Amino acid sequence: MNAVELIKKKRNGGSLTEEEIFYFISHYVKGKIPDYQKSALLMAIYFRGLDDSETLSFVKAIIDSGKTVDLSHIKKPKIDKHSTGGVGDKTSIILAPLVACFDVVVPMMSGRGLGHTGGTLDKLESIPGFNVRLTIREFIRNLEILNVSMIGQTDDLTPADRMMYALRDVTATVENVGLITASITSKKIAEGSEGIVYDVKVGSGSTLPTYEKSKELAEQLLKTSRDFGQNAIAVLTDMSSPLGYSIGNWTEIVECIEIMNTELTISPLSSDLLEVTLFLAGAMLKLAGKCNSFDEGVKLAGEKLSDGSCFRKFLALVEMQGGDTSLILSPEKYPPAKYNGFMIAEENGYIEKLDALTFGLAAVNLGCGRSSVDEKIDYTASILLEKKIGDKVSEGDTICRIFGETQEKVESTNRILHSGITISNSKPKTLNRIIEIID
Amino acid sequence: MNAVELIKKKRNGGSLTEEEIFYFISHYVKGKIPDYQKSALLMAIYFRGLDDSETLSFVKAIIDSGKTVDLSHIKKPKIDKHSTGGVGDKTSIILAPLVACFDVVVPMMSGRGLGHTGGTLDKLESIPGFNVRLTIREFIRNLEILNVSMIGQTDDLTPADRMMYALRDVTATVENVGLITASITSKKIAEGSEGIVYDVKVGSGSTLPTYEKSKELAEQLLKTSRDFGQNAIAVLTDMSSPLGYSIGNWTEIVECIEIMNTELTISPLSSDLLEVTLFLAGAMLKLAGKCNSFDEGVKLAGEKLSDGSCFRKFLALVEMQGGDTSLILSPEKYPPAKYNGFMIAEENGYIEKLDALTFGLAAVNLGCGRSSVDEKIDYTASILLEKKIGDKVSEGDTICRIFGETQEKVESTNRILHSGITISNSKPKTLNRIIEIID
Repeated sequence: MNAVELIKKKRNGGSLTEEEIFYFISHYVKGKIPDYQKSALLMAIYFRGLDDSETLSFVKAIIDSGKTVDLSHIKKPKIDKHSTGGVGDKTSIILAPLVACFDVVVPMMSGRGLGHTGGTLDKLESIPGFNVRLTIREFIRNLEILNVSMIGQTDDLTPADRMMYALRDVTATVENVGLITASITSKKIAEGSEGIVYDVKVGSGSTLPTYEKSKELAEQLLKTSRDFGQNAIAVLTDMSSPLGYSIGNWTEIVECIEIMNTELTISPLSSDLLEVTLFLAGAMLKLAGKCNSFDEGVKLAGEKLSDGSCFRKFLALVEMQGGDTSLILSPEKYPPAKYNGFMIAEENGYIEKLDALTFGLAAVNLGCGRSSVDEKIDYTASILLEKKIGDKVSEGDTICRIFGETQEKVESTNRILHSGITISNSKPKTLNRIIEIID
Repeated sequence: MNAVELIKKKRNGGSLTEEEIFYFISHYVKGKIPDYQKSALLMAIYFRGLDDSETLSFVKAIIDSGKTVDLSHIKKPKIDKHSTGGVGDKTSIILAPLVACFDVVVPMMSGRGLGHTGGTLDKLESIPGFNVRLTIREFIRNLEILNVSMIGQTDDLTPADRMMYALRDVTATVENVGLITASITSKKIAEGSEGIVYDVKVGSGSTLPTYEKSKELAEQLLKTSRDFGQNAIAVLTDMSSPLGYSIGNWTEIVECIEIMNTELTISPLSSDLLEVTLFLAGAMLKLAGKCNSFDEGVKLAGEKLSDGSCFRKFLALVEMQGGDTSLILSPEKYPPAKYNGFMIAEENGYIEKLDALTFGLAAVNLGCGRSSVDEKIDYTASILLEKKIGDKVSEGDTICRIFGETQEKVESTNRILHSGITISNSKPKTLNRIIEIID
């Protein structure tokens, strides 16, 4: 067996055996197969795809490349959620403590912002002191005490995935359903989850180009998770416009606090965020056996949100991971951004389009995300919507506000946003965020 | 402009501009674009192909990566031949001195054996002392004196091609018409040829899988050469069985000596080799303006072969490049191989198939070629056919003899050859080696 033969086999449309995939991945992780052969294989896979049995072998080989988290001693359901990534998507921040209130363990390992999409880890790190780099031992201890912990992928879990992901990012081999499936499911199995809700985004702000591709991914994720004995539900949700009203790291934490802290008022612009979050919570509770239907799960979740339990769990979580809870209780004390600007409506009409991809790219330009690995994030940079799709606007109304560390960044972001906003004469139909449930 | 964007553009089926191709190749040669991005692009090209304008830009960028040979001060036609590679294909050894007899300059830069195909450089180096690593200055001087020089590609000519070729070889991205065209034509333009005859092989021993692909390559080669102002003719020749009777390095030189040295007898088993060689010589003479038709060119070439001029030119060429001419004059003094074996017919009938690919792979196994870059070649290792396609055989007859440095290699080669030989009851039609002329 050698690397060139395997690349050629895949290139010619053959199906790699489990032995061949283990050979390639284990040699790659050990540095015995160089990046240039791996990237050639990845591009061949981009064109030829992975069949079901190849996907399973990929997942097994990726898991086998590192350690796994053993949570079998915790006699509670262990349920996680994974989102394929979006703009203004901050559901995890509420979901994790919310579901943990039901004596369900939520072992959440999240990622950083990538491309135009935001990352849960970056949002959590905007809370001063919050430590997402726990050891596996600390992670397990937190789960034992609080039922919830939110961390980044540790170095010893699925190293093959981390190496491959970095390579895919720079070789244009990210957008392939088989590779995405293997990357996601391997991490979710290695982290010790028994059940998983997949939030698969659809629309311009998602990572796949079409509804069909997103649906194909959802089905592959379910199939693969189930082949490994996990329970799973996939929810296709709309990501054609930002979720909630805020985009940016600290500002998204604040939008979540407004929803969780019963002393504060929920913005009407957060209603879609709330809808998606409660639905995902309901799905997680259903997987955990805490309810018999999505509706019942949504209702139960809503109660723990409105009675303050979720916020108390969030405070405990922040405290446990070293974050400054005084800022969670008084978010207005956070240092403000230096400059701000207004994106103004130039005509009368209705907001027809707030293009999620454009908002995501504008946010990266503003400093909310990174355009290269070593770039520093500006946690206070943010875009705050004052209108959502379907809202009436008059010329001169503010559509959104932009906060950044230089006037230049605020202005260039404003220019970028212009291309993503459409105003029309007639009131557009507003889409439901929950598009389809696959279970 | 950045590498990932360009890979993505090609991956999605876009056409790269000249500026983009120059960016990629020049940065690659300088080490500013890493191998793993180059190999991802090559695999995307494997699937998407290169259109005419991309192919031209590739050729330009490859030539631009290094020096070129300027032969404009030599006021004679400069004509070369390029073969896409085969088994037992030793036409260059005769062709180069033969055409040089007509006051045509033959600036021949050849390659080494690759995969199952033999290489002119390896054959020449089996002549003790023969130096194929001349400087450009020495190469030009030899052309001035003798009209002919046979060398390997120098380091400063088309370095981008050399780097890319090494990468393609280990990433399964060799077999693409656009990339093959760019690689071949760039070298032939940089070496200073004004006209070029392409011998494009068809059949199992060739580098492309089908007649259609070989024909596509032939047409691309012509088009690209002509776009750069070269005259060109392509000849599709049959490579489904070995050419001539010998496979191996020194033994192929000997088969050529038998044809060139009028004191020796030409084996009847060399008649196909002679046919192809004379035809290619005729085509080169036609390009050089030395005759008006292929037939006339073939006749002229035949005369210089039978009057001993070609052999004298060959001796002068060997002498000029440091080779031991006493062995050319008395080839029987060459040290023999230690072991030999016989491949015996196991039934009565006619030879239907002598599969060129199988013979090529068997020859590599025997030590005639390399299976990795640093392997040493055994110049005396050889397979000598005693029968050709269409010949009658009786059980117990020798089909070929095998010469190698260990008994084990001889026996394993014998076993490999078995799968490539078919004997049938009825006499098969013998195919013409010259399949098609495209000019």
